[in-house]
Amino acid sequence: MQNFADRQIAAIEKKGTPACVGLDPRFELIPREIRDYARESKSPADQAECLFTFSREVLDVVEPHVGVVKPQVAFYERLGVAGLAAYAATVQTARWKGLIVIGDVKRGDIGSTAEAYAASHLKDLEEDEEGGSLTADAITVNPYLGTDSVEPFVAMAREKGRGIYVLVKTSNPSAAEFQDLKVDGTELFVKVAEKVNDWGRELVGERGYSSVGAVVGATYPEQAARLRKIMPRAYLLVPGYGAQGAAAEDVGVCFNDDGLGAVVNSSRGIIYAWTRPPYKEQYGEGRWREAIEAATKDMINELRQVAVAT
Amino acid sequence: MQNFADRQIAAIEKKGTPACVGLDPRFELIPREIRDYARESKSPADQAECLFTFSREVLDVVEPHVGVVKPQVAFYERLGVAGLAAYAATVQTARWKGLIVIGDVKRGDIGSTAEAYAASHLKDLEEDEEGGSLTADAITVNPYLGTDSVEPFVAMAREKGRGIYVLVKTSNPSAAEFQDLKVDGTELFVKVAEKVNDWGRELVGERGYSSVGAVVGATYPEQAARLRKIMPRAYLLVPGYGAQGAAAEDVGVCFNDDGLGAVVNSSRGIIYAWTRPPYKEQYGEGRWREAIEAATKDMINELRQVAVAT
Repeated sequence: MQNFADRQIAAIEKKGTPACVGLDPRFELIPREIRDYARESKSPADQAECLFTFSREVLDVVEPHVGVVKPQVAFYERLGVAGLAAYAATVQTARWKGLIVIGDVKRGDIGSTAEAYAASHLKDLEEDEEGGSLTADAITVNPYLGTDSVEPFVAMAREKGRGIYVLVKTSNPSAAEFQDLKVDGTELFVKVAEKVNDWGRELVGERGYSSVGAVVGATYPEQAARLRKIMPRAYLLVPGYGAQGAAAEDVGVCFNDDGLGAVVNSSRGIIYAWTRPPYKEQYGEGRWREAIEAATKDMINELRQVAVAT
Repeated sequence: MQNFADRQIAAIEKKGTPACVGLDPRFELIPREIRDYARESKSPADQAECLFTFSREVLDVVEPHVGVVKPQVAFYERLGVAGLAAYAATVQTARWKGLIVIGDVKRGDIGSTAEAYAASHLKDLEEDEEGGSLTADAITVNPYLGTDSVEPFVAMAREKGRGIYVLVKTSNPSAAEFQDLKVDGTELFVKVAEKVNDWGRELVGERGYSSVGAVVGATYPEQAARLRKIMPRAYLLVPGYGAQGAAAEDVGVCFNDDGLGAVVNSSRGIIYAWTRPPYKEQYGEGRWREAIEAATKDMINELRQVAVAT
């Protein structure tokens, strides 16, 4: 069973970039030519079919360029069971393409319940003829309930060669409200980061990184720089690039001197590129695939300034 | 749009008990006569069908006795998309029976993503002919990401007459690890509780309770007593009763002087009653429905010592 962190580094090095494309599909925002499949239907099943079509098309466009993708389950779950079927299909399509898939599910619960989530999202279903597996290569996990709520995910990651990214410092404006509270003279997020080190200690791969990583928002670069040092062996999943406001110079601090150690995610800035300058003017909705490809390439070029992964 | 807290109090008063039955169905643990439907199949769809059958049977048994049920989505999600279809069917069956349904989903994410979760779990789907709606009367929500991650749930609760229960102090052994850390001389869970008051201020119903409630584990009765006073208008969802070790005397502190203010949940102690003394000896697996009913009635009687809801 190959270590997840090693697998992810191989995918990053193969494509030569730490860029990750986030899939946040909303029915109202996807290109009209795909929405038209649903023919003005408000049926969740029809709309979910459109979400999958869009996701698949985005994967086709970005797969030659990036090694990692991050579908956000909430935007699929929005459409109920049909939406989750679209999520499952998206995750499995991306895995078949050889991409590393981080399911952004932010699950977390008490031990016996966390075991069920860990099995759901990190272990393939047996005899799954209908393709309903939610299993990704890695998922995001919420730490608020403490060690016994995270251990089942760590155990499954070890057993199945998967990974987890624990929420340490998130990218949203309110992140500071609880995460930055001072305990024993330091912030709560530092306490969580120290636990991430503990949880990941036995899952370090050949390249020196653990399969237990951390979510660290690019929108708080000073804190990200501290967290990089506190968790030297943790891979950082860095949201907030692009539409949320962070730029390449902000994410540089998330990398180690080896040019590794971070996956930088952009979601809306890539998948809706044709709705934003400069791609809106250059391509428009009619050439949305080209806009997505251009935005992906631009992000990859920007990240070359700060990370040397080749 | 009737206020959720008022609707929940009406359901509690109608049945005369604050008891809540938790649905945590695991394929390996459900009665053999139901598992046999799947005929040794490992197909997730067949196993999920069994989870729904079991859930429906449990609802039939407990509906005459309790007003509130709490399906735990993780145990359904364990079986992928087919499992989530069983969750959706369970939630909607319970709603059709007039039960208040608390979806134990513990979702939470940054604002724009939380909006999608809020819509998924608190707003019925349009034109949902295939019954894939995940929408419950209320759900549990994780606060680690702060106010902007909770606001979308509060807004949807207001708009649709739904409720949320924010994780404040959970029932698991590791709960103290982060939740009890001292900030400004008090515990983190107190900081979260104070925010619960803020978030719920505009959703107080005619009976004086807010639709923004809090999860407070019965396994920590001293802290529960403090939290009861800090959040006087919050309904408390109290897990940990029964199989997790808390007894009636532990949960008494969760109620206000009006005999209201808490919903006390037991999951495994009720739905697997036939596997535990004294119901195992008295009923056994062959009479599992009677065991579930007896355990439900016993819990209701025990709670009469501590809450006067009639």
